[in-house]
Amino acid sequence: MIPGSDSPSTNPAESVVTTLGWVGDAATGVLRMIDQTRLPTEFVEIDCNDVPTVWEAIKALRVRGAPAIGVAAAFGAVIGARVGLRDGRAGVEAALKAAASYLATSRPTAVNLFWALDRMTAFAATIEHEASPEAYVNRLLDEANRIADEDRTTCRAIGRHGAELVVSGQGILTHCNAGGLATADYGTALAVVYAAQEQGKQIHVYADETRPLLQGSRLTAWELHKRGVPVTLICDNMAAVVMRQGKVGMVVVGADRIAANGDTANKIGTYGVALLAKAHGVPFYVAAPSSTFDLSLPDGSGIPIEERDPREITEGFGRVTAPAGISVYNPAFDVTPSELIAGIITERGVISPVNTAQIREVLSS
Amino acid sequence: MIPGSDSPSTNPAESVVTTLGWVGDAATGVLRMIDQTRLPTEFVEIDCNDVPTVWEAIKALRVRGAPAIGVAAAFGAVIGARVGLRDGRAGVEAALKAAASYLATSRPTAVNLFWALDRMTAFAATIEHEASPEAYVNRLLDEANRIADEDRTTCRAIGRHGAELVVSGQGILTHCNAGGLATADYGTALAVVYAAQEQGKQIHVYADETRPLLQGSRLTAWELHKRGVPVTLICDNMAAVVMRQGKVGMVVVGADRIAANGDTANKIGTYGVALLAKAHGVPFYVAAPSSTFDLSLPDGSGIPIEERDPREITEGFGRVTAPAGISVYNPAFDVTPSELIAGIITERGVISPVNTAQIREVLSS
Repeated sequence: MIPGSDSPSTNPAESVVTTLGWVGDAATGVLRMIDQTRLPTEFVEIDCNDVPTVWEAIKALRVRGAPAIGVAAAFGAVIGARVGLRDGRAGVEAALKAAASYLATSRPTAVNLFWALDRMTAFAATIEHEASPEAYVNRLLDEANRIADEDRTTCRAIGRHGAELVVSGQGILTHCNAGGLATADYGTALAVVYAAQEQGKQIHVYADETRPLLQGSRLTAWELHKRGVPVTLICDNMAAVVMRQGKVGMVVVGADRIAANGDTANKIGTYGVALLAKAHGVPFYVAAPSSTFDLSLPDGSGIPIEERDPREITEGFGRVTAPAGISVYNPAFDVTPSELIAGIITERGVISPVNTAQIREVLSS
Repeated sequence: MIPGSDSPSTNPAESVVTTLGWVGDAATGVLRMIDQTRLPTEFVEIDCNDVPTVWEAIKALRVRGAPAIGVAAAFGAVIGARVGLRDGRAGVEAALKAAASYLATSRPTAVNLFWALDRMTAFAATIEHEASPEAYVNRLLDEANRIADEDRTTCRAIGRHGAELVVSGQGILTHCNAGGLATADYGTALAVVYAAQEQGKQIHVYADETRPLLQGSRLTAWELHKRGVPVTLICDNMAAVVMRQGKVGMVVVGADRIAANGDTANKIGTYGVALLAKAHGVPFYVAAPSSTFDLSLPDGSGIPIEERDPREITEGFGRVTAPAGISVYNPAFDVTPSELIAGIITERGVISPVNTAQIREVLSS
């Protein structure tokens, strides 16, 4: 954690930021997270002590990135459950259920949110009946911490598998932020970058700024810079030119939900980047934990796409930049068809070619 | 001219804005222009009375768009020449030459700038020797006004030719601003839209916001809205999804310089849009006057590409949105290869297919 320090770390393996985590015991502790809406100019952490605050933090993208949303929701479930402590075991069970239902309404696309809440609920059902309400909440916190710990292990495994695909000296283009700020550790797409750098490979990252909310410039450029990875910031509409100039050897992005056939929902603009990569013969990779797969959906057409406030586009930078009353389309995600994806880098290995059978095989391995 | 009015006009043919023009006589008049950096929230006109003010207005994009830059430079040459009035005929001739050299350094890519300055200089050489210095300046103003008038005629002819390509009910996607604000009349790319609307065709425009300077949201959305053309504003990275949804029947953009083979320099992001259009089977058109062709360049590789201040990306709209000290790449233009262009719509007709022979034929017609 180096708020206030502007000098880049020279060791990318070191934990430069702690995106989110639990502080204290189950009964009185809090979920502490970086308020990512304040980056890169301000480093502010917020403590969440009630479910509406967690819900708002997810909704307003104070915490974002599919894996980190899942971890936040898991800790949010603990915070929700303990509200019922005064009403005994039945109270905490009912409060957990209510909190999980509420948190599930915060954002629709990232499946990790629902995955984490389902896991917390399923875990709760296994807690022995004789456990006291306090013990029940303690056990829930243990499970939430396990989810966070597993996310860390998963990030490292994704990095390890993905780094094998990186050719030293080649540029890597990424879109949005699938880095440390999107997970409990050092990311999914950016884990590939960090792991390759740890192996001594020469890397240069081109970071799409990622309109409307600029996660690329505010978050990806910030964390790469902090970790000492060379990075050039570009506007989204410059990706094609950088590829044409031969500066990009691979594209790697994160994912919010992956259907059974490999169709991948990710930050708006990802689909366009995948098409541009294809046009330039650049391999396009997705990096995501297995919790991002939604095998209940045969393909991407069933993935719900969140539409967000038009003001993110018309007055996103603190100044009004569009005429009053203008019609705006603001989908937060798009779906990249599996045929544009060279491989999906998971903690269990790289899925390639990307198709239903291959996905099933790697995920069940 | 309807500053202060927010109600869209229902007659797209009406001159809704006067982007730039001469006010007064040759000796004391001024070049009046809309300061486009203040749109869409403020409608402010500035009067240019000396060459450095014209130079700064072009450099800072107060006036922008290849044809409008040419018109501004022509009037700037008049303003420059009259500085020499006290030194007689030799004085105005020398002052014109100095002003033309200076104005030519304002921006490198749009060839209309050099075309207009060359035309003013060539015209000056035809002014009879017995003309008084005052008459000389009057004649220069006549020529600058002719350039502006021809631009108006050209816009209408481009609109007429381009409108034939528009299928009623189809969406049209455009990038940056090649509208009334980019010309002395109602645009090049947007002339196609306005002319089609005049013919009663049903049109819906998708306007890329066009980072970093947001000419799409600040200018294109503004003028389409003023003229009553239905428009939806999107971020640049949403163009692919809108195309995939089948909402776009054609793309039409402007141009800053077109090489002899049809390779076209235009606002950064245009090349990417052309690739996305190809991937979706959507025809991609360029609309530009013949003054935008630079037949001295066999292909686009020789077109100089302006790189602009990184702060346009890192702090473009009053707020810092990238970490301090970050590396930034900010080309203002890119080059779209001719093979991606279905046709170039000029005042002399539509060039299609786009190749050296066809361009030569239409331009010499």
